[in-house]
Amino acid sequence: MGGGKLHFRDFQTENFKHEAMKFIIKLIQKSIDKSNNNPPITYIMATGGGAHKFYNLMTKTFRKYKLPMKIIAKDEMECLIRGLDWLITKIPNEIFTYDLIADHTKFTDLQSESSIYPYLLVNIGSGVSMVKVTGPGEHERIGGSTLGGGTLWGLLSLLTDAKDYNEMLEMAQRGNNENIDLLVGDIYGTNYNKIGLKAHNIASSFAKVFKKLRFTNKKPEDIARSLLYSISNNIGQIAYLQALRFNLKRIYFGGSYISGHMQTIHTLSYAVNFWSKGDMQSYFLRHEGYLGSVGAFIMGPASNNSE
Amino acid sequence: MGGGKLHFRDFQTENFKHEAMKFIIKLIQKSIDKSNNNPPITYIMATGGGAHKFYNLMTKTFRKYKLPMKIIAKDEMECLIRGLDWLITKIPNEIFTYDLIADHTKFTDLQSESSIYPYLLVNIGSGVSMVKVTGPGEHERIGGSTLGGGTLWGLLSLLTDAKDYNEMLEMAQRGNNENIDLLVGDIYGTNYNKIGLKAHNIASSFAKVFKKLRFTNKKPEDIARSLLYSISNNIGQIAYLQALRFNLKRIYFGGSYISGHMQTIHTLSYAVNFWSKGDMQSYFLRHEGYLGSVGAFIMGPASNNSE
Repeated sequence: MGGGKLHFRDFQTENFKHEAMKFIIKLIQKSIDKSNNNPPITYIMATGGGAHKFYNLMTKTFRKYKLPMKIIAKDEMECLIRGLDWLITKIPNEIFTYDLIADHTKFTDLQSESSIYPYLLVNIGSGVSMVKVTGPGEHERIGGSTLGGGTLWGLLSLLTDAKDYNEMLEMAQRGNNENIDLLVGDIYGTNYNKIGLKAHNIASSFAKVFKKLRFTNKKPEDIARSLLYSISNNIGQIAYLQALRFNLKRIYFGGSYISGHMQTIHTLSYAVNFWSKGDMQSYFLRHEGYLGSVGAFIMGPASNNSE
Repeated sequence: MGGGKLHFRDFQTENFKHEAMKFIIKLIQKSIDKSNNNPPITYIMATGGGAHKFYNLMTKTFRKYKLPMKIIAKDEMECLIRGLDWLITKIPNEIFTYDLIADHTKFTDLQSESSIYPYLLVNIGSGVSMVKVTGPGEHERIGGSTLGGGTLWGLLSLLTDAKDYNEMLEMAQRGNNENIDLLVGDIYGTNYNKIGLKAHNIASSFAKVFKKLRFTNKKPEDIARSLLYSISNNIGQIAYLQALRFNLKRIYFGGSYISGHMQTIHTLSYAVNFWSKGDMQSYFLRHEGYLGSVGAFIMGPASNNSE
């Protein structure tokens, strides 16, 4: 990789044809102009659902524009892990933890490849995939959840007038979930000490809505926060239970659900710490949404792992 | 218990003061009229959150009406387990399973007390409690979830115009979640065989909403079904993971979330069977919403387990 610099650019899946394709074509045409005649083949490393879904569209379009390009589709899980391994071991100031006592994030030192396994990757995109990684190239999808970023986005599209995902996250930041969630104290009037539940613990997400529906307006901020909490807590709990099955102590959270949002990072950290009683550590990434693309890029066209 | 008959009656928590209290007072006054003078003390066995929250209200009200009554509050988890044990071992045609191949329910035979342990109780009320039971009176709350009946009810209060919980369940029955949930096939265009995901598997609950929001009206039936699926699947998965921790093979689902609704019973059964690869069995109850009250009733006033 030498001293190169990676650039990242996002497109919504639904805008692939009209935005992403146009961007790629422009980029390639510019680079061909520079190299004059006989341009070399440009490889497009593709991964994720789009690598399959848009394969034909890409191939046909490049042929139509007579561009010397080849698309190489790589397996999603493989790319995620390769990308993550590379970021953990090669990129300074990339991996961080959330210090729950000091209440801030902290970068971790670069680690050598021999010391990073085993770990659990929890990749939160629309849905959630949990992948056990025991060594370079040794990985297995051990579970997942349908309650992920798509659920947050989908439900908040129905429940608020937020225009995009970031606006939803900002709303959540300002909200108070205690107007929406039923707390242990709301049910018992106090702690339920015998089983270790505090009065301020959430007993049931969204359960207060029904009772108050006729009396108050629900604030979209409160709804956003409640939903962000419930989905993040749920992912944290399932991640803990999956990690426990295989005695994994390190959990890396990736995927575009997080989007660098501190409340999400805090909630995931808190849940893992709470359930594991401090026995497991959550890790986050500055480039959490790009594990797959980084992995595909690193694997390059020469690798024989293409599908 | 002799040849007695148990009667069950439901009240919403919010109507406790005006409906449940009136009902109790009328019932007692009638029974006192019959016994003429010097009526014996009537014990009220109370459990759950209300046993704490309404203790003072009940005591004051009975004093005001000069009724010879005593309230005995019992621990909720204790009552749930006592009630469940009693229903499993004493009541014919109470416990049933869902046969996923034949697609119908099937009563199980009465079991002797020595053969029922260990098991996991998953009690789904507003929230979810998971209790490991290893012998008579030997139990521990090992986990739970804030995503339960209160979440379904709360979110569907915001998203549909259903007037009560039953109406929501009927809506779900008629709905099609494939208009709401993003399926594996929607992302990959096909199965993702390498990790065992079929095209019709749900990848992300509610994720299709956002994409289609501007083009179609969301049907409340579809929303109800999607939410019922996602919450039930999630509970099923967490129940499996919790049962796995302690090598429990039998999972009893109780609590008013289920309300005898076949789709819920099917989804919970399916999830446990799917995740455990057929290694764990789900059980359901005809009186799933009354474990605690049955348990409190059986324990009676003489028991020394009151709080």
